Amino acid sequence: MAQLITSLTNPRIKHAVALRDKKTRDSDDLMLVEGYDDLSLAVTCLPGLRALFFCPALIKLAATDAQAFRATCSRAGAELIEVTEPVFRKIAYRDGPDGWLAVAPRPAFTLDRLPPLKEHPLLIVAERVEKPGNLGAILRTADAAGADAVIVCDPIADLTNPNVVRASIGALFSVPVATASNAETLAWLRARGIALLATTPAATQSFTDLDLTGPLAILVGEEKYGLSRFWLEQADVRALIPMSGKVNSLNVSVSAALLVYEAVKQRGQRTPKR
Amino acid sequence: MAQLITSLTNPRIKHAVALRDKKTRDSDDLMLVEGYDDLSLAVTCLPGLRALFFCPALIKLAATDAQAFRATCSRAGAELIEVTEPVFRKIAYRDGPDGWLAVAPRPAFTLDRLPPLKEHPLLIVAERVEKPGNLGAILRTADAAGADAVIVCDPIADLTNPNVVRASIGALFSVPVATASNAETLAWLRARGIALLATTPAATQSFTDLDLTGPLAILVGEEKYGLSRFWLEQADVRALIPMSGKVNSLNVSVSAALLVYEAVKQRGQRTPKR
Repeated sequence: MAQLITSLTNPRIKHAVALRDKKTRDSDDLMLVEGYDDLSLAVTCLPGLRALFFCPALIKLAATDAQAFRATCSRAGAELIEVTEPVFRKIAYRDGPDGWLAVAPRPAFTLDRLPPLKEHPLLIVAERVEKPGNLGAILRTADAAGADAVIVCDPIADLTNPNVVRASIGALFSVPVATASNAETLAWLRARGIALLATTPAATQSFTDLDLTGPLAILVGEEKYGLSRFWLEQADVRALIPMSGKVNSLNVSVSAALLVYEAVKQRGQRTPKR
Repeated sequence: MAQLITSLTNPRIKHAVALRDKKTRDSDDLMLVEGYDDLSLAVTCLPGLRALFFCPALIKLAATDAQAFRATCSRAGAELIEVTEPVFRKIAYRDGPDGWLAVAPRPAFTLDRLPPLKEHPLLIVAERVEKPGNLGAILRTADAAGADAVIVCDPIADLTNPNVVRASIGALFSVPVATASNAETLAWLRARGIALLATTPAATQSFTDLDLTGPLAILVGEEKYGLSRFWLEQADVRALIPMSGKVNSLNVSVSAALLVYEAVKQRGQRTPKR
């Protein structure tokens, strides 16, 4: 049986709201995951769940499906907490909430917890990417393209920021993700013989003319300044994205996607729609 | 000689702040453009300028360059208004303001004001794209790829929203842009014999296997729901972006860029870095 919370000032509700702040997430080592789709992915990848808040008035699932999902979350360790619609709208961080929100332990996101790599791995290394929308878009690209992992270096945005979780629409949970310092990431990649590809206007070869079939990490940098000197100097391959405009600057998630999809095409890993 | 404003409550300052709201932009038919780079592009494309606010304490240009830029803006019709740093920080909409902000008449953004198309034009049609960051990224892609135009259909986000201007980092001024209804846009494209390409998971051919060298409009849809039935039914070509993940959904600006850059590659229009 689920307990019922009807008060907007219940401490559990206040705590869920507080988890939108990095400070609370850091001190409690917890995060929020909202929405049936995201939670369905999260429940398979997160180290358990602490609490599941659900609001029958907002849930659009059939009753038996909703019941089954509550049971799934309960088996993952979640305390089941039914809430009224005003309470759910207080804890929800998404527009158009669907009545499901969980509090979960944060995954470690460490390099040593990444799953074993394939023979010719393809990774995205995102240095100091700041905007949740861009991180989310990069994670979606990595998911769709079947990349082995995304490593976020010297991160500015917190991966468990609700805006990142939302922008990734669940890819944060479907893609192996790690955060690490530039130096740790470099050592990890070097130890695995993974070539480093930097996209830079100083390159002379177009990205479509390069061989992207070997073990490869595609490096992208901070929105405003691009890759730091650290990565530009370490890069084994430099790729040009041809530009013929007046502004000549692509969004960081766009640059990453062009490179990733070129690599996927070259690897002949294209699969028809599932 | 420029007049000097030192008061945070000066009506001109209050009006500049009010122009962040669509309501004021609509009623006054004006917009804001901040930053030297954006303004340099805007001054060549906007129908004149009304006012240039500048703040010597924040300007990093050499004095002669700053003087020349003020003269350029003055010739474009701008009243020159020097402001103190607190005043500039009040009207600035960007982080790290560089001391330049103009009030300008809004361009018409109508289909009939688009410049003549090339022989095999490449356009992006963005239906109901909502997030300023995504619109900005699409405009940057169109600029870099040398697309002929971007048409924003049934727009939700206002193109002159400061967040769109900022996210486009000036591409709003370098790329021919129009907004129109779906029906008007369709008629305009049909009258010019431009094929319509929809990216949809229901397609069977990968976008890299299609001939994208003819007159082509690449259609992308709303973040949440994709293209409406209106465009899906009208599309002449359907393209699949292969996906092999669990979420299998790309950011709208990423999808647009993959298609645009494939078309550019096929057209052999790649140009080395300027």
